[in-house]
Amino acid sequence: MSDNVTLSLASMRELSESILMSNGFNQDHAQAITDVIYACQQDDCHSHGLYRLLMCVQSIQSGRVDGQASPEVVDVAPSVVKANANSGISLLAFNAALPMLIEKTKQNGIAALAINNCYHFSALWPEVERLSEAGLAAIAMVPSHAWVAPAGGSRGTLGTNPFAFSWPRQGKHPFTFDFATSEFARGEIELYRRAGKALPEGVAIDAAGHPTTDAEAAMQGAMLTFGGYKGSALSIMIELLAGPLIDDLTSKESMAFAQGKPEAPFHGEILIAFNPDLLSGGHTERNDERAERLFADIVDQGARLPSQRRYIAREQNIQQDAVSIPRALYEDILALRKA
Amino acid sequence: MSDNVTLSLASMRELSESILMSNGFNQDHAQAITDVIYACQQDDCHSHGLYRLLMCVQSIQSGRVDGQASPEVVDVAPSVVKANANSGISLLAFNAALPMLIEKTKQNGIAALAINNCYHFSALWPEVERLSEAGLAAIAMVPSHAWVAPAGGSRGTLGTNPFAFSWPRQGKHPFTFDFATSEFARGEIELYRRAGKALPEGVAIDAAGHPTTDAEAAMQGAMLTFGGYKGSALSIMIELLAGPLIDDLTSKESMAFAQGKPEAPFHGEILIAFNPDLLSGGHTERNDERAERLFADIVDQGARLPSQRRYIAREQNIQQDAVSIPRALYEDILALRKA
Repeated sequence: MSDNVTLSLASMRELSESILMSNGFNQDHAQAITDVIYACQQDDCHSHGLYRLLMCVQSIQSGRVDGQASPEVVDVAPSVVKANANSGISLLAFNAALPMLIEKTKQNGIAALAINNCYHFSALWPEVERLSEAGLAAIAMVPSHAWVAPAGGSRGTLGTNPFAFSWPRQGKHPFTFDFATSEFARGEIELYRRAGKALPEGVAIDAAGHPTTDAEAAMQGAMLTFGGYKGSALSIMIELLAGPLIDDLTSKESMAFAQGKPEAPFHGEILIAFNPDLLSGGHTERNDERAERLFADIVDQGARLPSQRRYIAREQNIQQDAVSIPRALYEDILALRKA
Repeated sequence: MSDNVTLSLASMRELSESILMSNGFNQDHAQAITDVIYACQQDDCHSHGLYRLLMCVQSIQSGRVDGQASPEVVDVAPSVVKANANSGISLLAFNAALPMLIEKTKQNGIAALAINNCYHFSALWPEVERLSEAGLAAIAMVPSHAWVAPAGGSRGTLGTNPFAFSWPRQGKHPFTFDFATSEFARGEIELYRRAGKALPEGVAIDAAGHPTTDAEAAMQGAMLTFGGYKGSALSIMIELLAGPLIDDLTSKESMAFAQGKPEAPFHGEILIAFNPDLLSGGHTERNDERAERLFADIVDQGARLPSQRRYIAREQNIQQDAVSIPRALYEDILALRKA
């Protein structure tokens, strides 16, 4: 018996939607969540693919995530859309506000979307990719929970605070990246802990604030940001822009709000979209070529563009109409189905 | 005889303006440049203080920087200002466009300023600080010259590509940072080379693309970004947003344009400003408090906020009405004065 289970793309979608709906998400939420889980699994981003169904179901079972919430989209200023997720998962609010964000960006050159009062579990790249499908460049940022110490600090204050960016390319997948500003993902530390392996230096501190390579001590202490004081500064910026700027929680407030419940973090999200046509003064063509020369120069020296591996997986999985997940995960997912 | 020369703040300003004007900058340019040199020297940012007069004078002597250029400010879209520096130093163009950037941001919630066709030598933090003085949060980015290799690469493609951010604080200096996305500044490598000291690991590669700790080999090869592939991704984003997005040069194009002349890099700059009042839905007060709790939590654990050291220097230097620079630098500056 294989350790993996292979699913067709259609059956992956069906599985995800049915699990979500049988646990109390309405069809709109189930579809919005499934779109992103599907996109991630299709690209072999296993950490944000079908695996996340476990977190979605845990979140709604904890009793605070509203699986029926209708997001409200508010046109607050010429270049600002706000979407109140009303305690639902963020994705339906994103979908509801996306057309207005695109419209405002096309009209005004740059615009922001602030999503408020949302539970958030998803990778950011599918969102910025969608803005690039509309011909726009985009940035997305969210806080998370306060597991990460600032540079020179001794305890968790910052979230893993991911930062995603996408740039549209004519006839090609966009140039897209999405990284946590912590050196490691929380889940990676957990994997080291389970395997009884020592962490690399520079990843974590213990509860007393001292550097540690002990994964257990790291789980009790705090993670560190990538890139020392520069990554730390960037992470603080993300706290500010995706928190106080948009009237929503910091990672520390989000963690307090969760009261230790195993649910997706509750906080806000900010997206910034750029219209290359207006910002370049109508010279998108020559600047697309300029950007392509930059990419070519990177690839030519043997470096990889971010997401390149993901796009290769996407093409293979679409061609084979199949994704593969561990049997144990598949069985855990099936066990979530309610009668 | 002391190795340092002490100047009053007024005499620093006078020195800077007179050196610039005697070398062909008109009064408007000389003042705009001096404002930033003054701000940096006042904060003991020696690398971007009076020392930069050498680069400004070299730049105009190379014959391409226009010391008389009048910037043109164009209102290209509701949330986009473009300022054509017309081959002048960037700072006069920034000053000319700043009121419109502030106005658009206050009106629309978010706005961008693209400065084009400028020679650029200055730190970015004085610019984002000025936006925070107007109650706004702000980001600034510029490319530079292609001295930095992308992660996994073997040669210079990216600039040192600084990224600056500022957040306004009620009755306090703003939360501001400004860092190069290269692990080291170009000047630091040069200091190691002169001192015959080995570089730390992870800072540079040699001309064959191999890791090196030899500063001489690093100058022939390329620098690395901070934070591995994440810092590299961020640096590529800066190339795109401060280059092709705004119809201006990448670091590689800027380097080719310079033809080896010892002048400030010629390229564009992008600033993004955020209006907390509109983005927070009018709840700035409670969100200012939220941001202050975040800062307090960082400082409380013994970590330093970025720029803290700079603000301490500022207060001391203002109180003493004095800045101190090496005598050798002072003499180099005096030697720039034309009869």
